[in-house]
Amino acid sequence: MIRVGIYGYGNLGKGVESAIRQNKDMELVAVFTRRDPESVKIRTQGVAVCHIDDMVGYKDKIDVMILCGGSATDLPVQTPEMAKHFNVIDSFDTHARILEHFAKVDTSAKESGKVAIISVGWDPGMFSLMRAYGLAVLPDGKDYTFWGKGVSQGHSDAIRRVEGVLDGKQYTIPVESALNAVRSGKNPDLTVREKHVRECFVVAKEGADKARIEKEIKEMKNYFADYDTTVHFITKEELDRDHSGIPHGGFVIRSGKTGLNGENSHIIEYSLKLDSNPEFTSSVLVAYARAAVRLNSEGVSGCKTVLDIAPSYLTIASKEELYKTLL
Amino acid sequence: MIRVGIYGYGNLGKGVESAIRQNKDMELVAVFTRRDPESVKIRTQGVAVCHIDDMVGYKDKIDVMILCGGSATDLPVQTPEMAKHFNVIDSFDTHARILEHFAKVDTSAKESGKVAIISVGWDPGMFSLMRAYGLAVLPDGKDYTFWGKGVSQGHSDAIRRVEGVLDGKQYTIPVESALNAVRSGKNPDLTVREKHVRECFVVAKEGADKARIEKEIKEMKNYFADYDTTVHFITKEELDRDHSGIPHGGFVIRSGKTGLNGENSHIIEYSLKLDSNPEFTSSVLVAYARAAVRLNSEGVSGCKTVLDIAPSYLTIASKEELYKTLL
Repeated sequence: MIRVGIYGYGNLGKGVESAIRQNKDMELVAVFTRRDPESVKIRTQGVAVCHIDDMVGYKDKIDVMILCGGSATDLPVQTPEMAKHFNVIDSFDTHARILEHFAKVDTSAKESGKVAIISVGWDPGMFSLMRAYGLAVLPDGKDYTFWGKGVSQGHSDAIRRVEGVLDGKQYTIPVESALNAVRSGKNPDLTVREKHVRECFVVAKEGADKARIEKEIKEMKNYFADYDTTVHFITKEELDRDHSGIPHGGFVIRSGKTGLNGENSHIIEYSLKLDSNPEFTSSVLVAYARAAVRLNSEGVSGCKTVLDIAPSYLTIASKEELYKTLL
Repeated sequence: MIRVGIYGYGNLGKGVESAIRQNKDMELVAVFTRRDPESVKIRTQGVAVCHIDDMVGYKDKIDVMILCGGSATDLPVQTPEMAKHFNVIDSFDTHARILEHFAKVDTSAKESGKVAIISVGWDPGMFSLMRAYGLAVLPDGKDYTFWGKGVSQGHSDAIRRVEGVLDGKQYTIPVESALNAVRSGKNPDLTVREKHVRECFVVAKEGADKARIEKEIKEMKNYFADYDTTVHFITKEELDRDHSGIPHGGFVIRSGKTGLNGENSHIIEYSLKLDSNPEFTSSVLVAYARAAVRLNSEGVSGCKTVLDIAPSYLTIASKEELYKTLL
């Protein structure tokens, strides 16, 4: 059995908790929190909830620690720190800072002799894999990533900061005609506006000026100004009833040519349609947790990404079973 | 530079020849044939065409040999034999015999200290990867593979063996309603007939009994009897004009659940739309040829499959570049 620890019990940590139950070779040993452990109720009976100060005592009781904090402030500190004691997995998703994060985590993990796999999830994660395979098999080509339809947490937060807004949710939606232009093999150059639209569902406070709210949202720099944005005002009841989920997804499309004169076109399309963004991300984290333990048991140490892991390390099945059933 | 040899110069060998030109770190050193080398004209100037009897003399001049023979009789003999002297790649696609083939090739490659990667292409190959990733990240789920729309060589050959048939081509086509049932997350059980239809374009000999030909095709066991098959009679000119390509493609869909009670559904869909089946397969072979050379230079030997290779081995880019641009 692979003994797993969870650090952080938000949506992602809860997703990891339920994903572990779907993997017969894994057991959840403890959940670690910065809060008072007494205040955290988890959904798996008989599993300890501990304060992070007690984590090092679990050094020999846990094979891999799955870090479920955020990329802004948690993971840049936690992952290098935890890699001193444990094999670790994180979902660090600040694309521009991955190299910097990698270097720090690699130093820690090499010193401790542990394996750390960073930036695991679906983007970065499964989508990164698809971009890499696309580049490998169609080097004379171009790739396109579209996100959605799905809830963007950052944009939903931005809406809620507008004066007069009680609550709100934002959906990122790929533009169908842009998707189809890419699928046609024309390799179009697409602007930000041409690729995605943004749809907002907003609950206004009583008496608030809706026209001003709509204008402020649509003109918000870095968030909405570069997009065609639609704003719908709804009631709190409607928001809770129709928009409480956290769906997401998207597309990675590689379009490329082969032949002596590039005479043949090929389209590779990968898409995700996810009812729950955090639960799917958690499932990916758990698969890579298995890989970290296996690699470490082979004597490997240091920081890795999804691009460095062979698929056969990810599943419970033996190599022979995989060859027989999946090849 | 990675020095590449090609063994066999049919559609696949020609595809490898053109794919090598798209990869700046590779050069084609020689093409090997069982025919009289004088009779084989290749499209790359300055590259030797040699008889296979001279192959062992190239032991130190070639880093990887790409085997472009067929799975029925060529590869079961050639891959274990060639792995005694070279890093090798093949596209062995007889799914039921892969384990047996693996064992033989592994013995040879371990003895010689070379790397052999077998069953490379798109199915087995890219589709195998997608089935493995799907199983890893959605263990509580089911996968579906659909082929087409594309030309099936075996079925086209079968048509041409019917008495009174001058020429013919067969397309395998996935049934749209079956695809949509899978995409809906319902995890349907689908029969062979429900998943694919077969469409045949047939040129009859003058005076041949078309009704009998159509009946014979539709009732042919192992090929058409289990499918809904359509037969179109066309002229030789129409066949050559409209059906001379070798397109193919297909879909791998993984449908799975997450959550404590499986309350959330997720759909992962991977599709290929290929103008040229052999050229795309060749492109995949070439990417894995790079991986074989890199792995061997790290001291690895033995037989591998696509499931055993980390994606970062496949592209010309360095790991740092990949992390920066693809993660």
